[in-house]
Amino acid sequence: MEEIRPLVHRVSYFETDQMGIVHHSNYIRWLEDARTDYMKQRGVSYREIEAMGVIMPVVSVACSYKQSAHFDELAFVSTRIRFFSGVRLVYDYEVSGEDGALLATGTSEHCFLDRETRKPIHLKRKLPRLCELMERLAEEDKTED
Amino acid sequence: MEEIRPLVHRVSYFETDQMGIVHHSNYIRWLEDARTDYMKQRGVSYREIEAMGVIMPVVSVACSYKQSAHFDELAFVSTRIRFFSGVRLVYDYEVSGEDGALLATGTSEHCFLDRETRKPIHLKRKLPRLCELMERLAEEDKTED
Amino acid sequence: MEEIRPLVHRVSYFETDQMGIVHHSNYIRWLEDARTDYMKQRGVSYREIEAMGVIMPVVSVACSYKQSAHFDELAFVSTRIRFFSGVRLVYDYEVSGEDGALLATGTSEHCFLDRETRKPIHLKRKLPRLCELMERLAEEDKTED
Amino acid sequence: MEEIRPLVHRVSYFETDQMGIVHHSNYIRWLEDARTDYMKQRGVSYREIEAMGVIMPVVSVACSYKQSAHFDELAFVSTRIRFFSGVRLVYDYEVSGEDGALLATGTSEHCFLDRETRKPIHLKRKLPRLCELMERLAEEDKTED
Repeated sequence: MEEIRPLVHRVSYFETDQMGIVHHSNYIRWLEDARTDYMKQRGVSYREIEAMGVIMPVVSVACSYKQSAHFDELAFVSTRIRFFSGVRLVYDYEVSGEDGALLATGTSEHCFLDRETRKPIHLKRKLPRLCELMERLAEEDKTED
Repeated sequence: MEEIRPLVHRVSYFETDQMGIVHHSNYIRWLEDARTDYMKQRGVSYREIEAMGVIMPVVSVACSYKQSAHFDELAFVSTRIRFFSGVRLVYDYEVSGEDGALLATGTSEHCFLDRETRKPIHLKRKLPRLCELMERLAEEDKTED
Repeated sequence: MEEIRPLVHRVSYFETDQMGIVHHSNYIRWLEDARTDYMKQRGVSYREIEAMGVIMPVVSVACSYKQSAHFDELAFVSTRIRFFSGVRLVYDYEVSGEDGALLATGTSEHCFLDRETRKPIHLKRKLPRLCELMERLAEEDKTED
Repeated sequence: MEEIRPLVHRVSYFETDQMGIVHHSNYIRWLEDARTDYMKQRGVSYREIEAMGVIMPVVSVACSYKQSAHFDELAFVSTRIRFFSGVRLVYDYEVSGEDGALLATGTSEHCFLDRETRKPIHLKRKLPRLCELMERLAEEDKTED
């Protein structure tokens, strides 16, 4: 399997708060950028998934903060699929700083909805080829341990 | 005409930056909240306008910053229509602090698009009653000077 | 004990995403607004805590999304202290919609740092009266069950 | 003079709104990223300027929107100094899409304040070498027309 590059994010001034560090809510947004980028590297485009009538809202999100990030520093967000069942998808994330230190870990959980009806769908029925691909990706991420 | 109350906004922690003041980009968002609230007070719901198939994207925005706002302070945003022609709408804003001091002034300019085709529309043809109401509001805001 | 009012938040247009719902990252910000407001109602000002040289960074945050919120709807965020030890503080949150439906639940965990040195502190030593007050609030929130 | 590369920004999902386009307020943030990056390419670090005791708050900002940007598209933000006097600095920006189409133009105006006293300073007195460099950069940007 090809190596997946972490998302590289340069911390913006507007992401800082009056503590002089990145406001914690921004990490939640970095995780989103990271899974979008991760999927794209593995051949799956969120934009296309939505165009095919499927949305993937966040069911839950969690983030643990280990060290602060600061303005103009680089943050690296690596992503992997922890679980995929066709109705539920869970990503794990690690955010690292320029020196490799762990800044944060995160998790997000997603379901699949029909874009029009907003009803839950089983990806296998709606987008079987995507479902197969996702199963394979999940398998690969698992065996990497 | 009934008195229009300014939007009251309590500054959030996440709106501050490492200068210890509200990041300037947030004011742009306050202006949006302010015009939404202003229109609602005058009987026009953005939500309903969109439901009727019209969107009002921002064509331009400008903001001048006079004094800084800080975490947990109140900001008051007053809104008025400066110009309305059926194809173009301009709002003016004033942002004041708790002590009445002027924090910022702003302007936003909007057009009207068909929500589906994204083509410009003349509000008179698409939503004539809303157009009449907007004309009246613009007139009232003018005579207030 | 006096009744604590939930934070009332009117959903802004800029909080929506292209799914037509509030982007999940905004809830993390609502939780922050909610705990600030909760503490203020109980006599504790974040602004003053920082002025006294103590910051309370977020150590972890989690949010589970039950139902979507939409532009211009009201959201109500209720807060309670789940745990307080003098070195660690955990809040629980419930976000409800206009009709009382549960939109989300959340948790945030905080530590106490010296604002200058950024070293962990025990609140009892640095701000003993605040520490006592927090202990009492935590106790009251517990007995409410 | 070395060629300055525009800031490259990949549109995030959280930057979209329910019109399905990038919310206008985000462009204001892109401008900030763009001037930070522009200055860095020309040898001036905002982080260092602040470390030397000078902050550069935004005095005014303006943005005109020509075309919409969408999720996962690239936006390119080019920056140039329009005016610099030692007490005031004005940047101009152009935001272009993947196909080179102009998405937006913007302007931001800045002053220089002492970080501690928050009083206006003349850059010449406080940071003479930076002032000289800025004068040269402004001159170069002008002659480029």
